[in-house]
Amino acid sequence: MEQFPEVVVCRLGHRPGRDDRMTTHVGLTARALGADRVIFPDNATDAVETAEDITDRFGGPFFAELVEKPAAVVRNWEGPIAHLTMYGEPVQTVESEIRSTVTEGDDPLLVVVGAEKVPFEMYEQADWNVAVTNQPHSEIAGLAVFLDRLFDGDELDREWVDASRRVVPKETGKLVLPVSEE
Amino acid sequence: MEQFPEVVVCRLGHRPGRDDRMTTHVGLTARALGADRVIFPDNATDAVETAEDITDRFGGPFFAELVEKPAAVVRNWEGPIAHLTMYGEPVQTVESEIRSTVTEGDDPLLVVVGAEKVPFEMYEQADWNVAVTNQPHSEIAGLAVFLDRLFDGDELDREWVDASRRVVPKETGKLVLPVSEE
Repeated sequence: MEQFPEVVVCRLGHRPGRDDRMTTHVGLTARALGADRVIFPDNATDAVETAEDITDRFGGPFFAELVEKPAAVVRNWEGPIAHLTMYGEPVQTVESEIRSTVTEGDDPLLVVVGAEKVPFEMYEQADWNVAVTNQPHSEIAGLAVFLDRLFDGDELDREWVDASRRVVPKETGKLVLPVSEE
Repeated sequence: MEQFPEVVVCRLGHRPGRDDRMTTHVGLTARALGADRVIFPDNATDAVETAEDITDRFGGPFFAELVEKPAAVVRNWEGPIAHLTMYGEPVQTVESEIRSTVTEGDDPLLVVVGAEKVPFEMYEQADWNVAVTNQPHSEIAGLAVFLDRLFDGDELDREWVDASRRVVPKETGKLVLPVSEE
Protein backbone atom coordinates (compact mmCIF):
# COMPACT_ATOMS: atom_id res chain seq x y z
CA MET A 1 0.00 0.00 0.00
CA GLU A 2 1.22 3.49 -0.83
CA GLN A 3 2.08 5.78 2.09
CA PHE A 4 2.40 2.79 4.41
CA PRO A 5 5.54 0.80 5.24
CA GLU A 6 5.71 -2.62 3.59
CA VAL A 7 3.29 -5.22 4.98
CA VAL A 8 4.34 -8.84 4.54
CA VAL A 9 2.13 -11.84 5.33
CA CYS A 10 3.92 -15.03 6.41
CA ARG A 11 2.00 -18.31 6.34
CA LEU A 12 3.41 -20.86 8.78
CA GLY A 13 3.15 -24.48 7.76
CA HIS A 14 1.44 -26.09 4.78
CA ARG A 15 0.26 -29.64 4.20
CA PRO A 16 0.11 -30.22 0.43
CA GLY A 17 -3.28 -31.53 -0.65
CA ARG A 18 -5.11 -30.79 2.57
CA ASP A 19 -4.13 -27.09 2.86
CA ASP A 20 -3.85 -26.14 -0.82
CA ARG A 21 -6.94 -23.97 -1.06
CA MET A 22 -6.58 -22.45 2.40
CA THR A 23 -2.98 -21.41 1.73
CA THR A 24 -3.91 -20.09 -1.72
CA HIS A 25 -6.72 -18.04 -0.21
CA VAL A 26 -4.35 -16.63 2.42
CA GLY A 27 -2.15 -15.41 -0.44
CA LEU A 28 -4.99 -13.95 -2.50
CA THR A 29 -6.50 -12.26 0.55
CA ALA A 30 -3.13 -10.75 1.42
CA ARG A 31 -2.90 -9.36 -2.12
CA ALA A 32 -6.48 -8.11 -2.43
CA LEU A 33 -6.53 -6.47 0.99
CA GLY A 34 -3.38 -4.42 0.70
CA ALA A 35 -0.37 -6.49 1.79
CA ASP A 36 2.71 -6.06 -0.42
CA ARG A 37 4.09 -9.57 -0.22
CA VAL A 38 3.32 -13.07 0.98
CA ILE A 39 5.77 -15.71 2.17
CA PHE A 40 4.79 -19.37 1.95
CA PRO A 41 6.56 -22.55 3.08
CA ASP A 42 8.47 -24.07 0.17
CA ASN A 43 6.02 -26.90 -0.38
CA ALA A 44 3.20 -24.45 -1.18
CA THR A 45 4.03 -24.24 -4.88
CA ASP A 46 0.37 -24.11 -5.98
CA ALA A 47 -0.27 -21.09 -3.79
CA VAL A 48 2.67 -19.11 -5.15
CA GLU A 49 1.70 -19.94 -8.73
CA THR A 50 -1.87 -18.81 -8.19
CA ALA A 51 -0.79 -15.55 -6.54
CA GLU A 52 1.57 -14.83 -9.45
CA ASP A 53 -1.04 -15.71 -12.04
CA ILE A 54 -3.66 -13.43 -10.44
CA THR A 55 -1.09 -10.61 -10.17
CA ASP A 56 -0.19 -11.03 -13.85
CA ARG A 57 -3.82 -10.73 -14.84
CA PHE A 58 -5.31 -8.32 -12.29
CA GLY A 59 -2.27 -6.21 -11.44
CA GLY A 60 0.11 -5.43 -8.64
CA PRO A 61 2.59 -4.72 -7.32
CA PHE A 62 2.43 -7.91 -5.24
CA PHE A 63 5.06 -10.55 -4.62
CA ALA A 64 4.74 -14.17 -3.53
CA GLU A 65 7.73 -16.25 -2.50
CA LEU A 66 8.60 -19.64 -1.11
CA VAL A 67 11.03 -20.01 1.79
CA GLU A 68 12.44 -23.14 3.35
CA LYS A 69 11.69 -22.13 6.93
CA PRO A 70 9.01 -19.52 7.58
CA ALA A 71 9.78 -19.76 11.31
CA ALA A 72 13.29 -18.48 10.57
CA VAL A 73 11.82 -15.48 8.71
CA VAL A 74 9.90 -14.62 11.85
CA ARG A 75 12.91 -15.19 14.11
CA ASN A 76 15.13 -12.90 12.03
CA TRP A 77 12.54 -10.19 11.25
CA GLU A 78 13.78 -6.71 12.09
CA GLY A 79 10.49 -4.83 12.06
CA PRO A 80 7.34 -5.23 14.12
CA ILE A 81 5.49 -8.56 14.11
CA ALA A 82 1.76 -9.19 14.52
CA HIS A 83 0.77 -12.83 15.00
CA LEU A 84 -2.88 -13.65 14.36
CA THR A 85 -4.24 -16.14 16.88
CA MET A 86 -7.58 -16.73 18.59
CA TYR A 87 -5.75 -16.68 21.93
CA GLY A 88 -4.44 -13.14 21.53
CA GLU A 89 -5.62 -9.66 22.43
CA PRO A 90 -8.74 -8.35 20.69
CA VAL A 91 -7.97 -6.64 17.37
CA GLN A 92 -10.19 -3.71 18.31
CA THR A 93 -8.03 -2.94 21.37
CA VAL A 94 -4.62 -3.20 19.66
CA GLU A 95 -5.28 -2.07 16.09
CA SER A 96 -4.57 1.63 16.62
CA GLU A 97 -1.34 0.89 18.52
CA ILE A 98 -0.18 -1.40 15.71
CA ARG A 99 -1.14 1.11 13.01
CA SER A 100 0.65 4.00 14.71
CA THR A 101 3.74 1.93 15.51
CA VAL A 102 4.00 0.86 11.87
CA THR A 103 3.23 4.20 10.26
CA GLU A 104 5.54 6.14 12.59
CA GLY A 105 8.46 3.85 11.65
CA ASP A 106 10.03 2.72 8.40
CA ASP A 107 10.31 -0.97 9.16
CA PRO A 108 8.09 -3.46 7.37
CA LEU A 109 5.34 -5.18 9.37
CA LEU A 110 5.26 -8.97 9.38
CA VAL A 111 1.80 -10.47 9.80
CA VAL A 112 2.11 -14.11 10.85
CA VAL A 113 -0.75 -16.46 9.97
CA GLY A 114 -0.65 -19.76 11.82
CA ALA A 115 -1.22 -23.28 10.63
CA GLU A 116 -2.30 -26.29 12.71
CA LYS A 117 0.51 -26.29 15.25
CA VAL A 118 2.11 -22.96 16.12
CA PRO A 119 5.31 -23.25 18.18
CA PHE A 120 5.29 -21.35 21.47
CA GLU A 121 8.24 -19.20 20.32
CA MET A 122 5.90 -17.54 17.83
CA TYR A 123 3.83 -16.07 20.65
CA GLU A 124 7.00 -14.74 22.27
CA GLN A 125 8.58 -13.39 19.09
CA ALA A 126 5.46 -11.44 18.15
CA ASP A 127 5.11 -7.84 19.27
CA TRP A 128 1.38 -8.40 19.28
CA ASN A 129 -0.64 -11.58 19.42
CA VAL A 130 -3.89 -10.44 17.84
CA ALA A 131 -7.31 -12.12 17.94
CA VAL A 132 -10.12 -11.36 15.53
CA THR A 133 -12.57 -12.60 18.16
CA ASN A 134 -11.40 -15.25 20.64
CA GLN A 135 -13.57 -17.76 18.79
CA PRO A 136 -12.38 -20.54 16.49
CA HIS A 137 -13.05 -19.63 12.87
CA SER A 138 -10.73 -19.13 9.91
CA GLU A 139 -7.22 -17.77 9.45
CA ILE A 140 -8.42 -16.30 6.15
CA ALA A 141 -11.22 -14.39 7.86
CA GLY A 142 -8.88 -13.23 10.61
CA LEU A 143 -6.33 -11.97 8.09
CA ALA A 144 -9.02 -10.15 6.10
CA VAL A 145 -10.46 -8.27 9.08
CA PHE A 146 -6.98 -7.51 10.43
CA LEU A 147 -5.78 -5.98 7.14
CA ASP A 148 -9.01 -4.02 6.62
CA ARG A 149 -8.61 -2.50 10.08
CA LEU A 150 -4.84 -1.99 9.79
CA PHE A 151 -5.29 0.06 6.62
CA ASP A 152 -8.50 1.64 7.93
CA GLY A 153 -10.31 0.67 4.73
CA ASP A 154 -7.89 2.53 2.45
CA GLU A 155 -6.91 -0.78 0.83
CA LEU A 156 -10.36 -0.96 -0.77
CA ASP A 157 -9.57 2.09 -2.91
CA ARG A 158 -6.19 0.85 -4.03
CA GLU A 159 -5.30 1.14 -7.72
CA TRP A 160 -3.65 -1.75 -9.51
CA VAL A 161 -0.73 -1.45 -11.91
CA ASP A 162 0.09 -3.59 -14.98
CA ALA A 163 -3.22 -5.46 -15.03
CA SER A 164 -4.38 -7.04 -18.28
CA ARG A 165 -8.03 -6.86 -17.17
CA ARG A 166 -10.20 -5.21 -14.60
CA VAL A 167 -13.61 -5.87 -13.12
CA VAL A 168 -16.04 -2.96 -13.43
CA PRO A 169 -18.33 -2.79 -10.36
CA LYS A 170 -21.94 -3.44 -11.34
CA GLU A 171 -25.29 -3.49 -9.60
CA THR A 172 -26.21 -6.68 -11.47
CA GLY A 173 -24.18 -9.14 -13.53
CA LYS A 174 -20.53 -9.30 -14.49
CA LEU A 175 -18.37 -6.91 -16.46
CA VAL A 176 -14.68 -7.53 -17.06
CA LEU A 177 -12.81 -5.23 -19.44
CA PRO A 178 -9.36 -5.60 -20.98
CA VAL A 179 -6.89 -2.96 -19.85
CA SER A 180 -5.30 -1.49 -22.94
CA GLU A 181 -1.56 -1.01 -22.89
CA GLU A 182 -0.58 2.61 -23.28
CA MET B 1 -26.56 -10.23 17.14
CA GLU B 2 -28.68 -8.44 19.72
CA GLN B 3 -30.49 -5.26 18.60
CA PHE B 4 -30.11 -6.26 14.97
CA PRO B 5 -32.57 -8.22 12.81
CA GLU B 6 -31.53 -11.81 12.13
CA VAL B 7 -28.61 -12.24 9.74
CA VAL B 8 -28.47 -15.54 7.87
CA VAL B 9 -25.57 -16.69 5.69
CA CYS B 10 -26.41 -19.00 2.79
CA ARG B 11 -23.62 -20.94 1.13
CA LEU B 12 -24.43 -21.86 -2.47
CA GLY B 13 -23.02 -25.14 -3.74
CA HIS B 14 -20.61 -27.56 -2.11
CA ARG B 15 -18.35 -30.22 -3.60
CA PRO B 16 -17.66 -32.82 -0.89
CA GLY B 17 -13.94 -33.42 -0.45
CA ARG B 18 -12.77 -30.43 -2.43
CA ASP B 19 -14.81 -27.77 -0.59
CA ASP B 20 -14.99 -29.28 2.90
CA ARG B 21 -12.70 -26.87 4.68
CA MET B 22 -13.84 -23.80 2.73
CA THR B 23 -17.50 -24.47 3.52
CA THR B 24 -16.66 -25.22 7.16
CA HIS B 25 -14.75 -21.95 7.42
CA VAL B 26 -17.69 -20.06 5.89
CA GLY B 27 -19.86 -21.47 8.68
CA LEU B 28 -17.40 -20.71 11.49
CA THR B 29 -16.76 -17.22 10.15
CA ALA B 30 -20.51 -16.57 10.00
CA ARG B 31 -20.80 -17.66 13.66
CA ALA B 32 -17.73 -15.82 14.99
CA LEU B 33 -18.52 -12.57 13.19
CA GLY B 34 -22.10 -12.14 14.31
CA ALA B 35 -24.45 -13.97 11.92
CA ASP B 36 -27.27 -15.87 13.64
CA ARG B 37 -27.54 -18.79 11.30
CA VAL B 38 -25.89 -20.52 8.36
CA ILE B 39 -27.54 -22.54 5.61
CA PHE B 40 -25.51 -25.16 3.76
CA PRO B 41 -26.35 -27.42 0.82
CA ASP B 42 -27.42 -30.83 2.11
CA ASN B 43 -24.19 -32.57 1.12
CA ALA B 44 -22.16 -30.33 3.48
CA THR B 45 -22.65 -32.58 6.49
CA ASP B 46 -19.11 -32.04 7.82
CA ALA B 47 -19.61 -28.29 7.88
CA VAL B 48 -22.87 -28.45 9.84
CA GLU B 49 -21.34 -30.89 12.34
CA THR B 50 -18.33 -28.64 12.93
CA ALA B 51 -20.51 -25.55 13.39
CA GLU B 52 -22.67 -27.41 15.93
CA ASP B 53 -19.65 -28.80 17.75
CA ILE B 54 -18.03 -25.36 18.06
CA THR B 55 -21.33 -23.84 19.21
CA ASP B 56 -21.70 -26.58 21.87
CA ARG B 57 -18.23 -25.83 23.20
CA PHE B 58 -17.82 -22.08 22.68
CA GLY B 59 -21.42 -20.92 22.93
CA GLY B 60 -24.20 -19.41 20.90
CA PRO B 61 -26.87 -18.83 19.98
CA PHE B 62 -25.97 -19.97 16.48
CA PHE B 63 -27.72 -22.40 14.17
CA ALA B 64 -26.46 -24.40 11.20
CA GLU B 65 -28.76 -26.26 8.88
CA LEU B 66 -28.73 -28.27 5.69
CA VAL B 67 -31.21 -27.59 2.90
CA GLU B 68 -31.79 -29.48 -0.32
CA LYS B 69 -31.75 -26.39 -2.54
CA PRO B 70 -30.04 -23.23 -1.27
CA ALA B 71 -31.07 -21.47 -4.49
CA ALA B 72 -34.72 -21.98 -3.50
CA VAL B 73 -34.03 -20.37 -0.11
CA VAL B 74 -32.76 -17.31 -1.95
CA ARG B 75 -35.69 -17.31 -4.39
CA ASN B 76 -38.27 -17.47 -1.59
CA TRP B 77 -36.54 -15.10 0.86
CA GLU B 78 -38.85 -12.35 2.09
CA GLY B 79 -36.26 -9.97 3.54
CA PRO B 80 -33.36 -8.13 1.95
CA ILE B 81 -30.61 -10.10 0.20
CA ALA B 82 -26.92 -9.21 -0.13
CA HIS B 83 -24.94 -11.37 -2.55
CA LEU B 84 -21.16 -11.28 -2.14
CA THR B 85 -19.38 -11.28 -5.49
CA MET B 86 -16.21 -9.75 -6.87
CA TYR B 87 -18.30 -8.30 -9.73
CA GLY B 88 -20.57 -6.26 -7.46
CA GLU B 89 -20.56 -2.74 -6.05
CA PRO B 90 -17.83 -1.84 -3.57
CA VAL B 91 -18.74 -2.73 0.02
CA GLN B 92 -17.60 0.71 1.19
CA THR B 93 -20.18 2.43 -1.03
CA VAL B 94 -23.17 0.22 -0.15
CA GLU B 95 -22.53 -0.82 3.45
CA SER B 96 -24.36 2.08 5.11
CA GLU B 97 -27.40 1.66 2.85
CA ILE B 98 -27.52 -2.06 3.65
CA ARG B 99 -27.11 -1.44 7.38
CA SER B 100 -29.84 1.18 7.53
CA THR B 101 -32.24 -0.85 5.38
CA VAL B 102 -31.78 -3.86 7.65
CA THR B 103 -31.90 -2.03 10.98
CA GLU B 104 -34.90 0.08 9.99
CA GLY B 105 -36.89 -3.05 9.13
CA ASP B 106 -37.71 -6.28 10.95
CA ASP B 107 -36.94 -8.70 8.15
CA PRO B 108 -33.92 -10.95 8.35
CA LEU B 109 -31.00 -10.27 6.01
CA LEU B 110 -29.79 -13.09 3.79
CA VAL B 111 -26.09 -12.95 2.93
CA VAL B 112 -25.41 -15.17 -0.06
CA VAL B 113 -21.91 -16.61 -0.45
CA GLY B 114 -21.23 -18.07 -3.86
CA ALA B 115 -19.49 -21.23 -4.91
CA GLU B 116 -17.79 -21.99 -8.26
CA LYS B 117 -20.73 -21.33 -10.57
CA VAL B 118 -23.31 -18.80 -9.49
CA PRO B 119 -26.45 -18.77 -11.64
CA PHE B 120 -27.34 -15.41 -13.17
CA GLU B 121 -30.67 -15.35 -11.28
CA MET B 122 -28.70 -14.84 -8.07
CA TYR B 123 -27.44 -11.46 -9.29
CA GLU B 124 -31.02 -10.46 -10.13
CA GLN B 125 -32.61 -11.75 -6.94
CA ALA B 126 -30.13 -9.90 -4.72
CA ASP B 127 -30.98 -6.42 -3.50
CA TRP B 128 -27.26 -5.73 -3.46
CA ASN B 129 -24.41 -7.44 -5.24
CA VAL B 130 -21.51 -6.53 -2.98
CA ALA B 131 -17.78 -6.72 -3.70
CA VAL B 132 -15.09 -6.70 -1.03
CA THR B 133 -12.66 -5.38 -3.63
CA ASN B 134 -13.22 -6.27 -7.28
CA GLN B 135 -10.23 -8.60 -7.05
CA PRO B 136 -10.30 -12.40 -6.93
CA HIS B 137 -9.56 -13.62 -3.41
CA SER B 138 -11.63 -15.67 -0.97
CA GLU B 139 -15.32 -15.96 -0.15
CA ILE B 140 -14.29 -16.42 3.49
CA ALA B 141 -12.38 -13.14 3.51
CA GLY B 142 -15.22 -11.36 1.73
CA LEU B 143 -17.76 -12.65 4.23
CA ALA B 144 -15.56 -11.62 7.17
CA VAL B 145 -15.05 -8.04 6.01
CA PHE B 146 -18.71 -7.72 5.02
CA LEU B 147 -19.99 -8.83 8.45
CA ASP B 148 -17.45 -6.70 10.32
CA ARG B 149 -18.63 -3.65 8.39
CA LEU B 150 -22.34 -4.55 8.53
CA PHE B 151 -22.22 -4.73 12.34
CA ASP B 152 -19.78 -1.82 12.52
CA GLY B 153 -17.43 -3.86 14.71
CA ASP B 154 -20.06 -4.52 17.40
CA GLU B 155 -19.84 -8.26 16.68
CA LEU B 156 -16.36 -8.29 18.21
CA ASP B 157 -17.81 -7.48 21.64
CA ARG B 158 -20.53 -10.09 21.47
CA GLU B 159 -21.11 -12.29 24.53
CA TRP B 160 -21.63 -16.01 24.12
CA VAL B 161 -24.26 -18.06 25.93
CA ASP B 162 -24.09 -21.72 27.07
CA ALA B 163 -20.39 -22.15 26.35
CA SER B 164 -18.48 -24.89 28.16
CA ARG B 165 -15.19 -23.03 27.74
CA ARG B 166 -13.89 -19.62 26.84
CA VAL B 167 -10.60 -18.22 25.60
CA VAL B 168 -9.14 -15.49 27.79
CA PRO B 169 -7.33 -12.89 25.64
CA LYS B 170 -3.61 -12.87 26.43
CA GLU B 171 -0.58 -10.88 25.35
CA THR B 172 1.43 -14.12 25.08
CA GLY B 173 0.45 -17.78 25.09
CA LYS B 174 -2.88 -19.55 25.41
CA LEU B 175 -5.45 -19.54 28.17
CA VAL B 176 -8.70 -21.46 27.93
CA LEU B 177 -10.93 -21.66 31.00
CA PRO B 178 -13.93 -23.88 31.67
CA VAL B 179 -17.18 -21.96 32.04
CA SER B 180 -18.82 -23.09 35.26
CA GLU B 181 -22.53 -23.75 35.09
CA GLU B 182 -24.50 -21.53 37.45
